Amino acid sequence: MTVTYLDVLAAAERVRGVVNRTPVFTSRALNSHVGVEVFFKGEHLQRTGSFKFRGAYNALTLLDRAAKKRGVVAFSSGNHAQGLAYAAKLLGIPAVICMPSDAPKVKLEATAGYGAEIVRYDRFTQDREQVANEIASARGLTLIPPYDHPHIIAGQGTAALELCEEVPDLDVLFVPVGGGGLIAGSALAAHGTQPGIRVYGVEPHNAADTHASFRKGERVKIDPPDTLADGLRITIPGRITFPIVQQSVHDIITVTEPEIVMGTRYVIERLKQVIEPSAGTGPGAVLSGKIPDGVKRLGVILCGGNIEPQVLAAIMADG
Amino acid sequence: MTVTYLDVLAAAERVRGVVNRTPVFTSRALNSHVGVEVFFKGEHLQRTGSFKFRGAYNALTLLDRAAKKRGVVAFSSGNHAQGLAYAAKLLGIPAVICMPSDAPKVKLEATAGYGAEIVRYDRFTQDREQVANEIASARGLTLIPPYDHPHIIAGQGTAALELCEEVPDLDVLFVPVGGGGLIAGSALAAHGTQPGIRVYGVEPHNAADTHASFRKGERVKIDPPDTLADGLRITIPGRITFPIVQQSVHDIITVTEPEIVMGTRYVIERLKQVIEPSAGTGPGAVLSGKIPDGVKRLGVILCGGNIEPQVLAAIMADG
Repeated sequence: MTVTYLDVLAAAERVRGVVNRTPVFTSRALNSHVGVEVFFKGEHLQRTGSFKFRGAYNALTLLDRAAKKRGVVAFSSGNHAQGLAYAAKLLGIPAVICMPSDAPKVKLEATAGYGAEIVRYDRFTQDREQVANEIASARGLTLIPPYDHPHIIAGQGTAALELCEEVPDLDVLFVPVGGGGLIAGSALAAHGTQPGIRVYGVEPHNAADTHASFRKGERVKIDPPDTLADGLRITIPGRITFPIVQQSVHDIITVTEPEIVMGTRYVIERLKQVIEPSAGTGPGAVLSGKIPDGVKRLGVILCGGNIEPQVLAAIMADG
Repeated sequence: MTVTYLDVLAAAERVRGVVNRTPVFTSRALNSHVGVEVFFKGEHLQRTGSFKFRGAYNALTLLDRAAKKRGVVAFSSGNHAQGLAYAAKLLGIPAVICMPSDAPKVKLEATAGYGAEIVRYDRFTQDREQVANEIASARGLTLIPPYDHPHIIAGQGTAALELCEEVPDLDVLFVPVGGGGLIAGSALAAHGTQPGIRVYGVEPHNAADTHASFRKGERVKIDPPDTLADGLRITIPGRITFPIVQQSVHDIITVTEPEIVMGTRYVIERLKQVIEPSAGTGPGAVLSGKIPDGVKRLGVILCGGNIEPQVLAAIMADG
């Protein structure tokens, strides 16, 4: 079961009019500073505050009628939970989200606010995947994984598709790398639209499982990572996403924690756009001299804007 | 010397292609929360980060050739300084900006970065207006005031003009009030475009000189105000702006400091847009139940996004 450019195009038809066609941001000052024209795709302005809504909505529309009626389940304390809960609400599909008992109150409330049933688990004694699987089989629900699913990947690709349609002749596209759903979909979309483009993943140095896997030629598992980019704290690339990354991504760039902070803060201060640290990876790479030689036009996907107020405060107070 | 809707239209022609046509932001969650459709005009994404660039550019283009060659001078430690410096740079006009010696380094550097000559004065022993006037006469420069000038007022009105063109049938428009340049221009633009519209000023309770003047029917001077909305720290309405406010503005609403913080924070957290506290006045009024009865469609001008990183940090850390 793989995914192609045609699946991304089909997903784009399905989500049209429901997902926000998010704006593209540019900065004359930045372009002149780095000597490259940079185009930021603002998925922090997507519904529920991240690109995750795209894949979730696409996957839900593709369930058969009986599965829609029974409902869906997911495990996530982050953007996938909110994207899925809201997509399910719009489609009238019951949704159960398994969240850790100690998840931030604001995230629990946001997810519950989208009408999802929250099942809490103890993340120190219980395995979240197992909890979700048990609920799925006990209640006949369909498990919707956060990235390793063809319909999720195709849906996530629609953000890059919009960017490549709006800004032609990009030389390079920078995409944050977590489990690989966004970059796999983005690579398919970008190559389908602009055959000469090179797609680079940008991954925290502290969570470089895809970087290591890409170098080794097989999926490498790392220890639970410690990075401010909480959306990218993944220990191993997906089974479905990784082969697409191997085939369609030019290289994986890593960024350090100070580079992530610098990138996040630059976008907040200069572009006046609130992004989360996971979205600061691309700008961090841009500002730290990691743009490949010869690039004239660079696309960067800002994947989300769901930053905890205290984290935003700390980033702005820093320095 | 007064200003009319036709002056705003003429200013719009002059600034076209130079000022950013800033985007309008909406939030389904906010609309459902307050029961009104709210349209935010994003002047934080204007060049130099505030609407001030509009008026400055309009005023500079209207100088005669000799005056352009001699140059201009202004006193400001804030957005007018940056807007004027940058407009002057684009037009090749020499600019001198008088700034207090203890102005934040970031503002001094930004203004100097636009190519302006900075003259520093001691704000405890020197009067800034006098310093600027002396420089103007000694060097033959034209003084460009921050708000009390017909060409400035007409230029500032172009933001509301864009909003009213893009979003027809607004019932009410909320505009922050400092010296009155923005609200005077906005009121002219709004009434010219949508005759039935009501324009409200929103002013900090702690800097309510226009509110007091409006009630009394004449310009009232207040003590130097203490408000987080640093762009609105004015002690008396302008001689030219106030009669326009009296004639064209429906009422002045005041907002407390906590309401300003709430409004600023809401826009940052929910709309993912970085605004300065002066721009948080309108959202603060919206969120604190100050929308007039019967309003269905409300425009709100977000006047700027030049917030000090430490102020942003404090607002996010608060609560």
